[in-house]
Amino acid sequence: MSARPASPKAVSLAELARRTGARVEGDPAVEVLRVATLANAGADEIAFLANPKYRADVAASRAGAVILAPDSAHLTTAPRLVHDNPYACFARVAQILDPYPPPAPGIHPSASVAASAKLGAGVSIGAQASIGEDVEIGAGSVIHPNVTIYPRVRIGARVVIHAGTVIGSDGFGYASEDGRWEKIPQTGSVLIGDDVEIGAGTTIDRGALADTVIEEGAKLDNQIQVGHNVRIGAHTAIAGCVGIAGSADIGRHCTIAGAAKILGHLKIADHVNISVDTLVTKSILEPGTYSGSFPNAPHREYLKIAALVRNLARMEERLRALEKQQRPAPADGGQ
Amino acid sequence: MSARPASPKAVSLAELARRTGARVEGDPAVEVLRVATLANAGADEIAFLANPKYRADVAASRAGAVILAPDSAHLTTAPRLVHDNPYACFARVAQILDPYPPPAPGIHPSASVAASAKLGAGVSIGAQASIGEDVEIGAGSVIHPNVTIYPRVRIGARVVIHAGTVIGSDGFGYASEDGRWEKIPQTGSVLIGDDVEIGAGTTIDRGALADTVIEEGAKLDNQIQVGHNVRIGAHTAIAGCVGIAGSADIGRHCTIAGAAKILGHLKIADHVNISVDTLVTKSILEPGTYSGSFPNAPHREYLKIAALVRNLARMEERLRALEKQQRPAPADGGQ
Amino acid sequence: MSARPASPKAVSLAELARRTGARVEGDPAVEVLRVATLANAGADEIAFLANPKYRADVAASRAGAVILAPDSAHLTTAPRLVHDNPYACFARVAQILDPYPPPAPGIHPSASVAASAKLGAGVSIGAQASIGEDVEIGAGSVIHPNVTIYPRVRIGARVVIHAGTVIGSDGFGYASEDGRWEKIPQTGSVLIGDDVEIGAGTTIDRGALADTVIEEGAKLDNQIQVGHNVRIGAHTAIAGCVGIAGSADIGRHCTIAGAAKILGHLKIADHVNISVDTLVTKSILEPGTYSGSFPNAPHREYLKIAALVRNLARMEERLRALEKQQRPAPADGGQ
Repeated sequence: MSARPASPKAVSLAELARRTGARVEGDPAVEVLRVATLANAGADEIAFLANPKYRADVAASRAGAVILAPDSAHLTTAPRLVHDNPYACFARVAQILDPYPPPAPGIHPSASVAASAKLGAGVSIGAQASIGEDVEIGAGSVIHPNVTIYPRVRIGARVVIHAGTVIGSDGFGYASEDGRWEKIPQTGSVLIGDDVEIGAGTTIDRGALADTVIEEGAKLDNQIQVGHNVRIGAHTAIAGCVGIAGSADIGRHCTIAGAAKILGHLKIADHVNISVDTLVTKSILEPGTYSGSFPNAPHREYLKIAALVRNLARMEERLRALEKQQRPAPADGGQ
Repeated sequence: MSARPASPKAVSLAELARRTGARVEGDPAVEVLRVATLANAGADEIAFLANPKYRADVAASRAGAVILAPDSAHLTTAPRLVHDNPYACFARVAQILDPYPPPAPGIHPSASVAASAKLGAGVSIGAQASIGEDVEIGAGSVIHPNVTIYPRVRIGARVVIHAGTVIGSDGFGYASEDGRWEKIPQTGSVLIGDDVEIGAGTTIDRGALADTVIEEGAKLDNQIQVGHNVRIGAHTAIAGCVGIAGSADIGRHCTIAGAAKILGHLKIADHVNISVDTLVTKSILEPGTYSGSFPNAPHREYLKIAALVRNLARMEERLRALEKQQRPAPADGGQ
Repeated sequence: MSARPASPKAVSLAELARRTGARVEGDPAVEVLRVATLANAGADEIAFLANPKYRADVAASRAGAVILAPDSAHLTTAPRLVHDNPYACFARVAQILDPYPPPAPGIHPSASVAASAKLGAGVSIGAQASIGEDVEIGAGSVIHPNVTIYPRVRIGARVVIHAGTVIGSDGFGYASEDGRWEKIPQTGSVLIGDDVEIGAGTTIDRGALADTVIEEGAKLDNQIQVGHNVRIGAHTAIAGCVGIAGSADIGRHCTIAGAAKILGHLKIADHVNISVDTLVTKSILEPGTYSGSFPNAPHREYLKIAALVRNLARMEERLRALEKQQRPAPADGGQ
């Protein structure tokens, strides 16, 4: 529906190859304006093959150029960028051809930045954002509109924080006394490493005594809740709607799919993948993929399944009764 | 606890009937000031019967007037509006008697609106909202406080967006390279059709190459996450805390109940109903209701059920062993 | 990573005892600057033993003082505060030693407060907050940055509302008519009692005809969604990512763990505990703990379990077939 945006300036395959480490096959002088899918690309666009299920689309594509892996390079006669990791190559080509400039450095006039906050070179603070006392933000970071950074939070360089996100709110800590809740002051902070990106509407609580830590290169999607004293290891990616309870210690290079929930005070090793909608109730010390979600079904069928789940103990008893009846049978000639 | 608000001016049943397409039975000159429940309504109020379980309340109600269906019109001698869809009639009567004016058109002085944004006639922009470059908002739309609309988002007419919601943040797209994440620029936008309403704290990501689309008349509740390139069909209603992953294509006239999760790159047909807390992992091509959520139980009982679920494979093996033992039995006289 | 913050002024055990109702054992003149864990505490810090699993740490701790229960007082020779509820005592000591001042009273210059709003003494309104018409906020309450309070919401004294939270947005109410949604005006409000704390990114809808009510002393964490006409009883604590559908009536002194979902129009008694990720579909009228969530497993194992769950009806049929075959066996001599 919207006109496809294009790079302000065409870029040659030779230049793209140089900047991405790819190899050109075909005419290196061919220029492209945009990235596109194999199915939609036209003569001034560069498409890519990353997922094998689109192999059949390569020959039919009208793309001016294609990014693909060495073992797929023969699938097209179009000029091409050949790269061992075509999806990553595509990502960098898309960055080079990105038609939109990044948010301008500087503080939007409507933003509120405490006088004691320290902003690195080239930081961009969006409209209506609130940056609290003694906050530190590293060079080149982008804070989008309506973000709130509480006092004393420290953010690294080249960090991006999307709109509406809150960093450094109080952790949820109370002691019960005579049926009332006595608040435990949350005196830690939040430390965010370099090159972290955080989506919209996400909340990251400050620590109680120690700090909440998001290590470098971690990527968090929208509407994630991170409790106090959590650690998220470097280069871990977390999809939308995930909840992480207090003091969970999550390793490096993990992926956590959407709507997963991680209980508090547990440890997740490096290189663990948590599947969508999975509740993690115990530490996971071995790399691998862990899953747990109720399968859906047409409603009537679901009602039967749910009733059977609820009565599994009864089913197990019936099975045990049968086993008991059965086992002596051979010995005493059928009872 | 709060005094019940009333319409600034009483309205006659005759006028309400004229404006809602209902038929008056009883005195059309009777005037009412407010809507109310059958149980609570007084002489200057109009109640309604939409849910059959409240039929018994009709006769006892002290409401000055009642809205009901033709087959229930005999349940009361009070003046009444008779309408084939009494709940929709009630909705429109409530709109007519709404004691509160809509947010005033115009831009709140504390809002931030880019000079390049195009606002239709009568648009209301709330306090602390941020409207980015080249945004378009159609006539009569209401943007509540602290909303963020990213650049180039296009919003139709008579759209309502509640506080804290974010439209057009970057989709979650990265390519993995050498253990790091390379960002894929999100150059699409978000298109929102006419008469859409979006709740508070909801986030809708912009598309990667194409656009994220919310078609006309769709209604989204609070704290919903909509990934990049999703399509939500016209007149679909989505309750709170739902998560929709990237490129999901959801039909028209669907209902998605609270906390449901829809995986990405799948298709949901028109007229599909997804039940509360249900994870949709595959396309649903037939209309109907689909469900899937773990039943709750008192904690001890739950622990047993969960253990049995975890060991279902063992239970199935035991069952198979019994079947094996059993099957030959009739043939060889009990083993 | 950050230097541990300290109270601006050392406080003696004698004073702490006087202000918390604890008893001093050892030198009451000993002064401390900070709270700390048993493992990390130094000579100018006070640690605490609340969880029995840390008993062994007491003797080894280098804390200048320790807070513990009477039956643990013998575990250390360090000066100590003895209190029947050492965790609550710790909470209050931490409040006394809190190194950070509370947000300053007054309205931040960037906030937007309607002229008709009534603020009690000492109220603090954070940056970029939006306070609507006719809102009332009781004495000593703190509204953090980027919070939105819709018109006519009433908030008690000493309430804390964290950043990005929205109070009083429209409930999700529509009537279906000819495939379109007709909006039902939400004319109720939200009433929040004294001493309530609400986390970041939480949304609380206003009522349709009546009010949404959060009673005194309730504590809500981040990213909670509260539908219209809900009641949350006094001193109930609700963890992050919980969703509560419209008209749910939740008792006093309940705890609702993270990511639980409560359906609408049901009742939960006082003193009910809902476990993490549990869907509550029916009223719970007896105090106790209720749970329900799918157990996770390594992915391959999970796939088997999920397939078995989906086919439980078939498994039950097989079991029934065996029972049928088995039952006559004893009577007729092995078939």
